[in-house]
Amino acid sequence: MRKMRRKGLASMAVQTAETPTNPTTPAVDLGPAAALSCRECGHKVPLGPVFACEECFGPLEISYDFSAYDAEELRKRIEAGPANIWRYAPLLPVPADVATKPNINPGWTKLVKADNLARELGVTGGLYVKDDSGNPTHSFKDRVVAQALEAARAFGFTTLSCSSTGNLAGAVGAAAARAGFRSCVFIPHDLEQGKVVMAAVYGGELVGIEGNYDDVNRFCSELIGDPAGEGWGFVNVNLRPYYAEGSKTLAYEICEQLGWKLPDQLVVPIASGSQLTKIDKGLKELIELGLVEDKPYKIFGAQAEGCSPVSTAFKAGHDVVRPQKPNTIAKSLAIGNPADGPYVLDIARRTGGAVEDVTDEQVVDAIKLLARTEGIFAETAGGVTVGVTKKLIEDGVLDPSLTTVVLNTGDGLKTLDAVAGTGLTATIRPNLDSFREAGLA
Amino acid sequence: MRKMRRKGLASMAVQTAETPTNPTTPAVDLGPAAALSCRECGHKVPLGPVFACEECFGPLEISYDFSAYDAEELRKRIEAGPANIWRYAPLLPVPADVATKPNINPGWTKLVKADNLARELGVTGGLYVKDDSGNPTHSFKDRVVAQALEAARAFGFTTLSCSSTGNLAGAVGAAAARAGFRSCVFIPHDLEQGKVVMAAVYGGELVGIEGNYDDVNRFCSELIGDPAGEGWGFVNVNLRPYYAEGSKTLAYEICEQLGWKLPDQLVVPIASGSQLTKIDKGLKELIELGLVEDKPYKIFGAQAEGCSPVSTAFKAGHDVVRPQKPNTIAKSLAIGNPADGPYVLDIARRTGGAVEDVTDEQVVDAIKLLARTEGIFAETAGGVTVGVTKKLIEDGVLDPSLTTVVLNTGDGLKTLDAVAGTGLTATIRPNLDSFREAGLA
Repeated sequence: MRKMRRKGLASMAVQTAETPTNPTTPAVDLGPAAALSCRECGHKVPLGPVFACEECFGPLEISYDFSAYDAEELRKRIEAGPANIWRYAPLLPVPADVATKPNINPGWTKLVKADNLARELGVTGGLYVKDDSGNPTHSFKDRVVAQALEAARAFGFTTLSCSSTGNLAGAVGAAAARAGFRSCVFIPHDLEQGKVVMAAVYGGELVGIEGNYDDVNRFCSELIGDPAGEGWGFVNVNLRPYYAEGSKTLAYEICEQLGWKLPDQLVVPIASGSQLTKIDKGLKELIELGLVEDKPYKIFGAQAEGCSPVSTAFKAGHDVVRPQKPNTIAKSLAIGNPADGPYVLDIARRTGGAVEDVTDEQVVDAIKLLARTEGIFAETAGGVTVGVTKKLIEDGVLDPSLTTVVLNTGDGLKTLDAVAGTGLTATIRPNLDSFREAGLA
Repeated sequence: MRKMRRKGLASMAVQTAETPTNPTTPAVDLGPAAALSCRECGHKVPLGPVFACEECFGPLEISYDFSAYDAEELRKRIEAGPANIWRYAPLLPVPADVATKPNINPGWTKLVKADNLARELGVTGGLYVKDDSGNPTHSFKDRVVAQALEAARAFGFTTLSCSSTGNLAGAVGAAAARAGFRSCVFIPHDLEQGKVVMAAVYGGELVGIEGNYDDVNRFCSELIGDPAGEGWGFVNVNLRPYYAEGSKTLAYEICEQLGWKLPDQLVVPIASGSQLTKIDKGLKELIELGLVEDKPYKIFGAQAEGCSPVSTAFKAGHDVVRPQKPNTIAKSLAIGNPADGPYVLDIARRTGGAVEDVTDEQVVDAIKLLARTEGIFAETAGGVTVGVTKKLIEDGVLDPSLTTVVLNTGDGLKTLDAVAGTGLTATIRPNLDSFREAGLA
């Protein structure tokens, strides 16, 4: 058991009772999803609530059958689809009629042309902010939860659960409520009040765990192996392969919103690293499907200095990521032992990108910079990406003459403490004399 | 001056220096907007930053020239437009190229089919929630501010300003930042912390006024008449006729999202009453333009008991609204002297609707009900509309067999205090024993 635990999620690799036996004929209808495939050894298993390879304990991911698609027809089908992630149903592990089922239908958030920010940062090639605060519970987590929910439905689960740093808790609570699932969410007991209330208000179980996010995650893995966890779909554990695919929709939307073009550079936050790896997967799929022209793109990863295991490994030239104990205001990125860290390193190096980190002070400055220039109030994670973008430009690593997309994955209202110092610039009595006395005239 | 003040906003009726003289040839390009027209006496003046009739001090509103439109062509043009309010540019006081200018581009928010809530309330005819928490700063105010900003640009103003109960402050701060205006926002000094920080983070002036919203509003009217207010566009005072038109987009979107059909019943919150009157205006325009079939609809107004001047007048059969001193948790609706109150009474009576109010306790219950059933976390104003809907059904006033649309105009994260009692359902140590001890297994 010790040895398996070192492999992380691999310890609870396969729940065979739920798994059909023939990998070529999935028993569940999840659209183009054909099988689960090991990212390490390529071993394939049928679609089911499993997340680690039975052969090598590597992480499983969805493999698809896209062979029937014609690029032009597919593009038209997508463009005629709903203004949410289900427009990309042909590219996701969901049934074709997914848009008719009760779900929170996230996505198709704004890609904001950030001309004011571009001027301040000296970007001349076009700067965009993909603003996922527009999702139903105001973070990108709605994308992955909506996916996991469809898998949970397909596998007959009745409870939707997760470990969470906060944003995910709200997304799971909301999605479960809409879709008629019971929810039970596990969070570190000391989260920001806004995230706690936002998760609790949906009426599901909300359980505080005395420990940090890694402790919460370990506990959930234990619960899955226990009879008490039967019928439970943990969106980011036993449903992780499905869940993770939701991040591909960020890549799809960015390209479609750019007029079916790849950006030259993307700056993506790193928590577990899953989002960044799936954005890369999504971009590669669009190229392979002929929906965008094949050209090089660079992916940059962004971390907070107080939780920068991937950035540290990148700078040291390492292939493995050494866990850290998180200590940063960017709690939604505070995963000290990021499961996809090594894949992030691969992608940053392969595409010519980089991984960088910024201090908490730089995070706060970047939140204010984005708000002041573009009217977008970002969560601390958005401060991390904007701050890292600034730093990478100053260091000559990010090319300001190229088209650049920066992700904001959450909402400033959930991390008000970070900017609590901002407030009234003056307090006056309701008359012109008082207005003048305050120097406002 | 006393007498004029009793007419409310009329005291600062006309700023002649900014106003062109020929009502048939507007000097500014605001698309189909032809003139300003008095809602009381019909007197017309050219488009300008004026808000009250020079003849009778009645409120001015935009009159349009829609004569060139063909219904089918217009419908296609709208459907081909952007996924925001500018798809309706042909029906708004904005230039045709509005979508290319820097603005926050709100709208096209979700119309959620609320089947779970319908079951709980016994609605069989189809229940929908128009969820405006999906706007850029998470309230419907982004719609009206985006409109006012275009008017401010057309009139050459350089400062964007407002009096606000909170939501508007954030919307003005964000829009001004994006569009490159200076902003100076006036709010009651004791607002919810979330709204204060959200307004302050955009970097403009944020001035607390020692008084309630009505005091803030009065002060702004004074400032407009003073040289200190020159070049200032107060979105909800001297730009009010343009600003108010933004609410029409709620009507347009609801009908388009229902497949170009009118709903049978709408439940709309009342603060100043402007939103409700403009929704009615929008619905009537769609009928007149032939974009929807002409059939009866009923509009219901919703207030909190602690600020229910319109509801009180409706129940008493009065035509005038007697001001109240607000005392409710629904601060975004806490306007004790609602400018459009009499028009709201007219509309509720003419359409066969009603105006009702609920207690703060019912507001909180309704917030939780909506969250638990639909995964939508509403601001207190959303608790008011859902609570009033429930009450109207129970009282047999709202017909549950008809298609009903309930508005949620804001976001629960901005009024966390209202549901602060919700939180963790349990706190455990990270192991299965502790999980079982807590009765969670």
